[in-house]
Amino acid sequence: MIYFRSDYSQGAHPKVMEALMKTNLEHTDGYGMDDHCRNAEKMIQTLIGDDDCHVHMMVGGTPCNVTFIAASLKPYESVVSVRSGHAYFHETGAVEATGHRIITMEGADGKLTPEMIDRAWEEYEDEHTPLPRLAYISQPTEIGTIYSKAEMTALSEKCREKDMLLYADGARLGCALTSRWNDLSIKELAGLCDAFYIGGTKNGALFGEAMVIKGSALNDHFRWMIKRQCGLLAKGRLIGVQFEALLDGGSESIYFEMAAHANKMADMLRESLSNMGIKFYSNSQTNQVFPIFPAGVAEQLAREIFFYKWAPEKDGMIPIRLVTAWGTKEDDVKAFLTAAGRLI
Amino acid sequence: MIYFRSDYSQGAHPKVMEALMKTNLEHTDGYGMDDHCRNAEKMIQTLIGDDDCHVHMMVGGTPCNVTFIAASLKPYESVVSVRSGHAYFHETGAVEATGHRIITMEGADGKLTPEMIDRAWEEYEDEHTPLPRLAYISQPTEIGTIYSKAEMTALSEKCREKDMLLYADGARLGCALTSRWNDLSIKELAGLCDAFYIGGTKNGALFGEAMVIKGSALNDHFRWMIKRQCGLLAKGRLIGVQFEALLDGGSESIYFEMAAHANKMADMLRESLSNMGIKFYSNSQTNQVFPIFPAGVAEQLAREIFFYKWAPEKDGMIPIRLVTAWGTKEDDVKAFLTAAGRLI
Amino acid sequence: MIYFRSDYSQGAHPKVMEALMKTNLEHTDGYGMDDHCRNAEKMIQTLIGDDDCHVHMMVGGTPCNVTFIAASLKPYESVVSVRSGHAYFHETGAVEATGHRIITMEGADGKLTPEMIDRAWEEYEDEHTPLPRLAYISQPTEIGTIYSKAEMTALSEKCREKDMLLYADGARLGCALTSRWNDLSIKELAGLCDAFYIGGTKNGALFGEAMVIKGSALNDHFRWMIKRQCGLLAKGRLIGVQFEALLDGGSESIYFEMAAHANKMADMLRESLSNMGIKFYSNSQTNQVFPIFPAGVAEQLAREIFFYKWAPEKDGMIPIRLVTAWGTKEDDVKAFLTAAGRLI
Amino acid sequence: MIYFRSDYSQGAHPKVMEALMKTNLEHTDGYGMDDHCRNAEKMIQTLIGDDDCHVHMMVGGTPCNVTFIAASLKPYESVVSVRSGHAYFHETGAVEATGHRIITMEGADGKLTPEMIDRAWEEYEDEHTPLPRLAYISQPTEIGTIYSKAEMTALSEKCREKDMLLYADGARLGCALTSRWNDLSIKELAGLCDAFYIGGTKNGALFGEAMVIKGSALNDHFRWMIKRQCGLLAKGRLIGVQFEALLDGGSESIYFEMAAHANKMADMLRESLSNMGIKFYSNSQTNQVFPIFPAGVAEQLAREIFFYKWAPEKDGMIPIRLVTAWGTKEDDVKAFLTAAGRLI
Repeated sequence: MIYFRSDYSQGAHPKVMEALMKTNLEHTDGYGMDDHCRNAEKMIQTLIGDDDCHVHMMVGGTPCNVTFIAASLKPYESVVSVRSGHAYFHETGAVEATGHRIITMEGADGKLTPEMIDRAWEEYEDEHTPLPRLAYISQPTEIGTIYSKAEMTALSEKCREKDMLLYADGARLGCALTSRWNDLSIKELAGLCDAFYIGGTKNGALFGEAMVIKGSALNDHFRWMIKRQCGLLAKGRLIGVQFEALLDGGSESIYFEMAAHANKMADMLRESLSNMGIKFYSNSQTNQVFPIFPAGVAEQLAREIFFYKWAPEKDGMIPIRLVTAWGTKEDDVKAFLTAAGRLI
Repeated sequence: MIYFRSDYSQGAHPKVMEALMKTNLEHTDGYGMDDHCRNAEKMIQTLIGDDDCHVHMMVGGTPCNVTFIAASLKPYESVVSVRSGHAYFHETGAVEATGHRIITMEGADGKLTPEMIDRAWEEYEDEHTPLPRLAYISQPTEIGTIYSKAEMTALSEKCREKDMLLYADGARLGCALTSRWNDLSIKELAGLCDAFYIGGTKNGALFGEAMVIKGSALNDHFRWMIKRQCGLLAKGRLIGVQFEALLDGGSESIYFEMAAHANKMADMLRESLSNMGIKFYSNSQTNQVFPIFPAGVAEQLAREIFFYKWAPEKDGMIPIRLVTAWGTKEDDVKAFLTAAGRLI
Repeated sequence: MIYFRSDYSQGAHPKVMEALMKTNLEHTDGYGMDDHCRNAEKMIQTLIGDDDCHVHMMVGGTPCNVTFIAASLKPYESVVSVRSGHAYFHETGAVEATGHRIITMEGADGKLTPEMIDRAWEEYEDEHTPLPRLAYISQPTEIGTIYSKAEMTALSEKCREKDMLLYADGARLGCALTSRWNDLSIKELAGLCDAFYIGGTKNGALFGEAMVIKGSALNDHFRWMIKRQCGLLAKGRLIGVQFEALLDGGSESIYFEMAAHANKMADMLRESLSNMGIKFYSNSQTNQVFPIFPAGVAEQLAREIFFYKWAPEKDGMIPIRLVTAWGTKEDDVKAFLTAAGRLI
Repeated sequence: MIYFRSDYSQGAHPKVMEALMKTNLEHTDGYGMDDHCRNAEKMIQTLIGDDDCHVHMMVGGTPCNVTFIAASLKPYESVVSVRSGHAYFHETGAVEATGHRIITMEGADGKLTPEMIDRAWEEYEDEHTPLPRLAYISQPTEIGTIYSKAEMTALSEKCREKDMLLYADGARLGCALTSRWNDLSIKELAGLCDAFYIGGTKNGALFGEAMVIKGSALNDHFRWMIKRQCGLLAKGRLIGVQFEALLDGGSESIYFEMAAHANKMADMLRESLSNMGIKFYSNSQTNQVFPIFPAGVAEQLAREIFFYKWAPEKDGMIPIRLVTAWGTKEDDVKAFLTAAGRLI
């Protein structure tokens, strides 16, 4: 059966597996204190052009989000995010579990804006209100849109004005960077944010993300926080080894190649569906596509193709989510389009 | 100077002070394990017609809200509230400090509706989303409106349907119960909620609230929770003694008399300002009045009268909040009206 | 019946009640932002000879301990205390509820020593262990002993050496300061600690403690923390008014007079019981006395006198706790001694 | 260089890698909702002879400990553990981070006893003390000792008597089960505990542990808790696949074979060192050996062999820790013994 349900349904890119096999019997120290992690850190420092940043190999995206927030906020400080933000919408209150509020803002296209930051501050009064201190965004967003350079710059400036941190969840960062609409390089993104992570899980790693923290102050005792939040992997090197493989070749590495492929497959879906007259739930610019089908058609498609329904049915129509990945085959895309074409 | 800034600006009703003086040299056991607290509990059981409920003497409203939420929710469960709810808007993230999210809903008149509960459940999916488990409301709301019997009944039914708890913040409960628009008795309210508190601080007590919990399951180890949340008063009897004085006479007690007086003063303000053509920020039915003045007028009034601005200036107009209380004098009301009449 | 069960069994010293009565109808702003609190702060600054310290009027001792710890520690930092320390032993895990460990040390006389701090650091390794950051002590201790000037100085120096904060729980500080064995003035104590509180509840206040924080860094956003931890009293002035009354006259105030009286009553008990050949569970130097009686005698005494058993029976003997207070009468002491003399 | 520093210094057993390679391109649903995880669960149910238990594939040991504790305790409940327990000693306060105290007991041989449980209850009083609710043990302990069937049975009975849960940290469970001193089968252990985990990371898995929870009540919404505590792996199947490989063949599987090998290597070290007259820090019965060397000898050994110092130097002697694993070669053991023999 054809699989468009997620970009973490398969294992890892063969080169990643190869690297894990090759290093399998090495003895190294635990908890990320090994040469592979150090090397991956250096590769990332080069990639983003910042030798002073700190890189931590993390097990998943939620641990990245939660550990950074818990580490960098004081107890009475809070996060600002769009309501559709992953840290709010799909992490079971893991941020609140560390004692911090997420102040939510409605955002039609999944993006946080400087105006929303201002609105959060309008709600702030004094010691009776938690202090907005960190803006949480995803690049790309949960619905596949990306921040342009101008948008990200404006957000970063607003954060500086308000003495707030800007944090970017990069679960699908590769797809943002290789989107054909993208004008924001990873170096520029790194320059505008205080911390972000480079997602591996959803882009060809077996598992793991590379957390990037800028400057020593924010990084202070961060490893203590990772352990306290249950996120320190004994064989930390596994993630270092994977990022060595993923980023080998820098901008020519499989990391970017895989993301570009996923985008290409999504573009194919988008264009063809659009040509069939299908409307979309969001103007996604990356590897997620949200076509809206008549409920009956969606039902039929679901018999041969794996995908998620994205929002409740309304007036007989239902948005579904198709996710492409490094392993998506052009034949899968064609098969989907054929099935959809047949049914509508 | 005239004071309309809050209903906790003065000490206590003379009868409360008298009771504290009279019992001052008694020796009793600490932490609310004394005859005054037991007696106050019985008086409240009688008042609400429920001998099986449990009453805890609490220091303030925030401790009531937070302790009950922390005690009755599992770690992955969350609260649903209107965004203007006190527990969300004015308690510095104290609920989130215990690890629970407050899911906020926009509510024009300050009230939570069954539809909002449904919306919270639409956002709920599975193990990736916190489970809505407690509906937090205030009676009256933060902007002075009250739930009618029909509204509260519908909300209660929706909560039961969804296996949720209904909790009412009664900081100004006296004013809700004595509002001339009220059709919901304290017995009925107690029948529809799982827990609520009878506010003392804002209605003539020196300090303290009476937390009412229905049934033994919800009350299990509640005293452990009060202590853990730092809310167990050594001389707990002080609150018991006050509630004995406040509720002496039941529905004829000073508790209801004071609240009725506060409402009467607010009604005077409302009617006279309305007659002057003043519009209001909310259709308050209790002891808070939210007239909207030209910014310049508000500025001038602030020179002789204490009150808070309630929301940002917009188009040259600004809503202010006037709060009346048991100690508000008719002369204060008249003085305000004279000043306002002179300026507009 | 005669009451030696606690020093918070009665209301307040008449002068405290008088001050509350006198100010009862004043209108003031809430949450401790009033002239009484400001005045009490100044009186305390003068008393301890430090104009730069910050004073917060708190509802109780547990809120003081927990709020300061939660405010001043980073998430991965911990507290060091003797196992008998109040914050560990009698606060239902309220410190851990804010996410911080209390590292306990066994201390025969209830006191924390520099050696224990060293031992806590021996257990510390790296990112796998929480970092000891705050030493929690009580002056006097839970079993009535007091730190001498030399002991407190050594502890303070050790804390500075280890970059730790020294915090003193002063629930019964008056009794330490007026103990006839005491050589440590409040100014000296204030000079050696980073924060402490001056206990009101157990020394003649109706309720309330004065939290003293030294320097602006530790005080940063402390009011946000008080609110978040549910400890901000709406009528905050009530505590300010009480401390004005308690400390009126400085070292000649009723605060010291009451504590000295409690100590005197305890000294009488100690000396007379000692003369009867009674042994003690602790060498208390303040208003708690811990005689060890044959279990049968303790049982008989309990029929006419209120007190707590302090530790389990062992070899037929049981330690009890007698607590004296500002309201203890010499006749009560004599009655106890007569009863004890009759029974042993 | 020879490596005795840990049992997680290498990757995975070749058969584990092979299984990951073989399944790498399969598409499965995420978060452990796949056939491999289901199959591994069934294999474990068969292994322990309990079809009603629930098995969760977890990323590491700390997430197992912390998630189960946070899921099964009420906020005012606490854990009892020996002070050397991993959850207390090497997890940076991760348990306290969820709001629960660990009550520590000194235990010379690393084991918790029924007497210690009794002592914890002696310290318990009422609402002023957190309630002991879960006994945390490791099998084997941090210092390599194992609970006999009699000891574990006594502990389990004491827990039932006190209405406490018994939880076993099985990071090195394989080595306990294959120790030549062991008389407690995994079925018996499962019968005596309420929950435990079967450690993979330290016994030949790439990473991951299998958390076993007995009965549906304790398992209620456990997946919500895993996500909230940041422990839900997107490609959860990775751990399922590994446990399929590890446990293939049941008691004849590589899981037991690898652990037996590690024990055998440790036995060789122990016997030979003992024959040389070396004393040990603990009577380890599993794959950790704690010889005590003259400090100078330890220093010299550290030049050619990787190991940790285990405790501070005392009287010129220092205990070190040697850990063997599935990948330890007999030649490594011999090389160590030769070096040690040469130096002492």
